[in-house]
Amino acid sequence: MSLPRIAIDAMGGDEGVRVMVEGVSLAHGCNPSLRFLLVGDEAKVAERLALYPGLAEAVEIRHAPEVISGDERPTQALRRARTTSMGMAVDAVKRGDAGAAVSAGNTGALMAISKLALRTISGIDRPALAALMPTLGNHDLVMLDLGANTNCDSRNLVQFAIMGAAYARIVNGLASPRVRLLNIGSEETKGTEDLRDAAALLKQVNGSLALSFEGFIEADKLSRGDVDVAVTDGFSGNIALKAMEGAARFVADLLRRSFASSLRSKLGFLISRPATDLLRHHLDPNQHNGAIFLGLNGVVVKSHGGASAVGVAHAIKITARLLEENLTERIAADLANVGAEMIQNPARAGQRGQVEASPQSDLASEQGA
Amino acid sequence: MSLPRIAIDAMGGDEGVRVMVEGVSLAHGCNPSLRFLLVGDEAKVAERLALYPGLAEAVEIRHAPEVISGDERPTQALRRARTTSMGMAVDAVKRGDAGAAVSAGNTGALMAISKLALRTISGIDRPALAALMPTLGNHDLVMLDLGANTNCDSRNLVQFAIMGAAYARIVNGLASPRVRLLNIGSEETKGTEDLRDAAALLKQVNGSLALSFEGFIEADKLSRGDVDVAVTDGFSGNIALKAMEGAARFVADLLRRSFASSLRSKLGFLISRPATDLLRHHLDPNQHNGAIFLGLNGVVVKSHGGASAVGVAHAIKITARLLEENLTERIAADLANVGAEMIQNPARAGQRGQVEASPQSDLASEQGA
Repeated sequence: MSLPRIAIDAMGGDEGVRVMVEGVSLAHGCNPSLRFLLVGDEAKVAERLALYPGLAEAVEIRHAPEVISGDERPTQALRRARTTSMGMAVDAVKRGDAGAAVSAGNTGALMAISKLALRTISGIDRPALAALMPTLGNHDLVMLDLGANTNCDSRNLVQFAIMGAAYARIVNGLASPRVRLLNIGSEETKGTEDLRDAAALLKQVNGSLALSFEGFIEADKLSRGDVDVAVTDGFSGNIALKAMEGAARFVADLLRRSFASSLRSKLGFLISRPATDLLRHHLDPNQHNGAIFLGLNGVVVKSHGGASAVGVAHAIKITARLLEENLTERIAADLANVGAEMIQNPARAGQRGQVEASPQSDLASEQGA
Repeated sequence: MSLPRIAIDAMGGDEGVRVMVEGVSLAHGCNPSLRFLLVGDEAKVAERLALYPGLAEAVEIRHAPEVISGDERPTQALRRARTTSMGMAVDAVKRGDAGAAVSAGNTGALMAISKLALRTISGIDRPALAALMPTLGNHDLVMLDLGANTNCDSRNLVQFAIMGAAYARIVNGLASPRVRLLNIGSEETKGTEDLRDAAALLKQVNGSLALSFEGFIEADKLSRGDVDVAVTDGFSGNIALKAMEGAARFVADLLRRSFASSLRSKLGFLISRPATDLLRHHLDPNQHNGAIFLGLNGVVVKSHGGASAVGVAHAIKITARLLEENLTERIAADLANVGAEMIQNPARAGQRGQVEASPQSDLASEQGA
């Protein structure tokens, strides 16, 4: 059975059409059964496409006269959804004209456009941006939200936990993923009220979900491989993700300086080249590119604005995998199993088992383990 | 002129008295003119102290019957300030019995106790935890708040910017430090309303402050050395700091695995040992240990709970440096120069130059560059 085709916002991202079309070509090279709908300036897309003759039969071009810019506000982008490459790529998914959309454009705009066009899965208030991050363990960490929602309340966080666990079950084949909330301490008294409320709720419904909620996690422990899903609001998630990227690059830069500091070090570097190449490959953001908006009736993947063609190809590979695995249907089914009341009103559902009411700010600690 | 002595909470931190006394001994070895007041369980402190005979004349022990635990709430810790090693160490600063206090205990408790005992400098609502972080540039980055205040409004952020700049002028000798607010994008429309408001205010008063406000910065760009002060709320700051620490450790672990992956790599590692040792030293958190509470009438330094004796000694060295440099007086003088209205009511001061009122959420973009 062949997969539905993938709509590509051919104009988004720092370098736009050049990188996007080359990424499509690379992805097609790895999996020649893939089919694409390239949405963007027809002349420009055709010009780039001419460089990859093997791609012609796998691709249809759809002309979009406009492009959404990197600093455009979501509200403004929404108004231009019908005429822009991003809006029209997502619209193709809505119409069933493509199975999924990939864009390297403005994250906030992509979120707003996707939410309006595709709507959220029943019971989910807001989609969340989720990505797979490398760890020292046996499989990647699912982390969400990475920037789609600047402010999140406890209800959003609980919904993210459920969606993140469903995603981890699908991509990592885990029966009961270990879920933690990102916080500034592991003690139950730490963090914001929304985090403490979300923790108390997840703890109470733990047994009825196909996940294992294990409390809070601090940002320095994310890469150790002892948690499967890390849940956070979009502001903190974006800060954590970028801080890790920046620190990894910082260490690599220092390493390069250290190796260049003496003849002996240079020799050592040459000899250990295969080791450092392995490291570079492992840390290359392009090898982890492709974040997904979880919670939508459809697959929308965000490619990093600065990703290379290899990165775009990786995002397309992830997209194809999610189509193969029927991600949307499986998350919806998973959410249905969890029980509608829990998702739509975690506060009420969570408090069912609670006899005495305690002051809100003390909720988490009063129910402490 | 000899410095006033330094009060040490001898019981705080993961390993308590053993590491704290050894740290004091190391710091004293480097600078034999330092004097200390060790506050804690008298018998335990004396027992450890007996191992370092050279230290006896530099130290006085003050008995504190209790210890504040790592997960104790600040409100509870405050009630026990008079009988705990942390509370009594800070109290010694209040009484002028010591010039500064160092503790490796519970950050929230230390913040609450210090704020109550020492009060904030006139015009500052809340102290902020600031640290120096390594960069690729010529000097360290001052970053604050790192966890003292979970929620911060625009007024807090503006005050942190002013205090952080004062600290950077003192420790890094800069005339007009480049200040940025940590955000999830560099565009003016990004982030929370408080961040956008703080940015608009700092932009308007830029000329009247001894700092150069340059807008937002994303977390992946913190280590590049092109900003001197990064300002954020305590939640995001703590997440960013720990994410960077964790990522640096992750890369180091991967590097170790890579080097161990083949005989050739092992050989390369042995040859380039001086380079990797240099890297390890540069990244060792103990070489950067010691965060300061800015904005108090007195010097209080937080040593990392997991710091080694070398780390404790480093925190003590920073403390001595701040005493030498008269940090508190210089920050107070600096704040006085800025003008009382700006600090105490940045919103009003910031809007003086503004003729038309614009909707709050659009403030930043309407005033866009």
